[in-house]
Amino acid sequence: MKRRNGFPGRLARALAPSFLPVMVLLAAVAVAGEGDAPPKDFRSWAHSKSTVVADKANPLHGFHNQYANEAALATLRKGGEYKDGAIFVDSVNAVEEKNGIYVPGPKVKTLVMIRDRKAETTGGWVFQAFDPAGKPMKIDPVKNCFECHLGGAKESGFVFHKYAE
Amino acid sequence: MKRRNGFPGRLARALAPSFLPVMVLLAAVAVAGEGDAPPKDFRSWAHSKSTVVADKANPLHGFHNQYANEAALATLRKGGEYKDGAIFVDSVNAVEEKNGIYVPGPKVKTLVMIRDRKAETTGGWVFQAFDPAGKPMKIDPVKNCFECHLGGAKESGFVFHKYAE
Repeated sequence: MKRRNGFPGRLARALAPSFLPVMVLLAAVAVAGEGDAPPKDFRSWAHSKSTVVADKANPLHGFHNQYANEAALATLRKGGEYKDGAIFVDSVNAVEEKNGIYVPGPKVKTLVMIRDRKAETTGGWVFQAFDPAGKPMKIDPVKNCFECHLGGAKESGFVFHKYAE
Repeated sequence: MKRRNGFPGRLARALAPSFLPVMVLLAAVAVAGEGDAPPKDFRSWAHSKSTVVADKANPLHGFHNQYANEAALATLRKGGEYKDGAIFVDSVNAVEEKNGIYVPGPKVKTLVMIRDRKAETTGGWVFQAFDPAGKPMKIDPVKNCFECHLGGAKESGFVFHKYAE
């Protein structure tokens, strides 16, 4: 394997006890890094449903296009418990309307739900939000996401939408 | 290969000159048969765009979810001339609305555009329509489909919709 920027050398030095605080910091960054960007290829996943929330007073106002990876799609269609690794993406665009025709406008944000049963405070799902450039948005996953999913979608594993046939 | 219903035998007999009219008829049926059903797997294709035509007076009234096979998607995103075999599917559901939230209701029909440059009277596209059971609907491809695509989408290869980012 080609050495890049001398990383293996730096790693070796970091393994020395005097570099332990640096190591701990690096590990913390690696874990947080899971949510650095939306799944790169979600637009090639199966489209599970679209919903247009036209009412501007609704906090979910937007043109929602929802996508499921293979693990999420199987459970969405057949039922049962979602397995770790199932992912839903809700790609939200602005709502544009003319003569009673609603189309998606510019991208507003990307919402992501990743099944991880270790996420106990949020029903076994990791909730994430990203701006149109793909940068993480600051959210409170419990208050901004899970409380509503808990209230309205407990019977379907906290997943609101149904697969649109 | 297992023989089914003695078909190879009947085919052999049909090859005799006295069966020529039957052969011509069979060939015609085979060509028409290309549109016997919508593409089986289109819901696993890339979702290119959704549009809600809420106005009931609009002939395109419905919740439209549009899908593109690989050949169609590449040209939709990058431009250029569509290659034979490119297919778009417009899956149309009823429009259900409550409190300014539009969701797809029951399936209404499936519209299909297949690129085939031999289809000269309809801009090199074969237009098809299927009912919710997947049975062909009787349409006039020129009057019901192409005349509108010709009028409004000539510059984009007769394809109206753009890929929604």
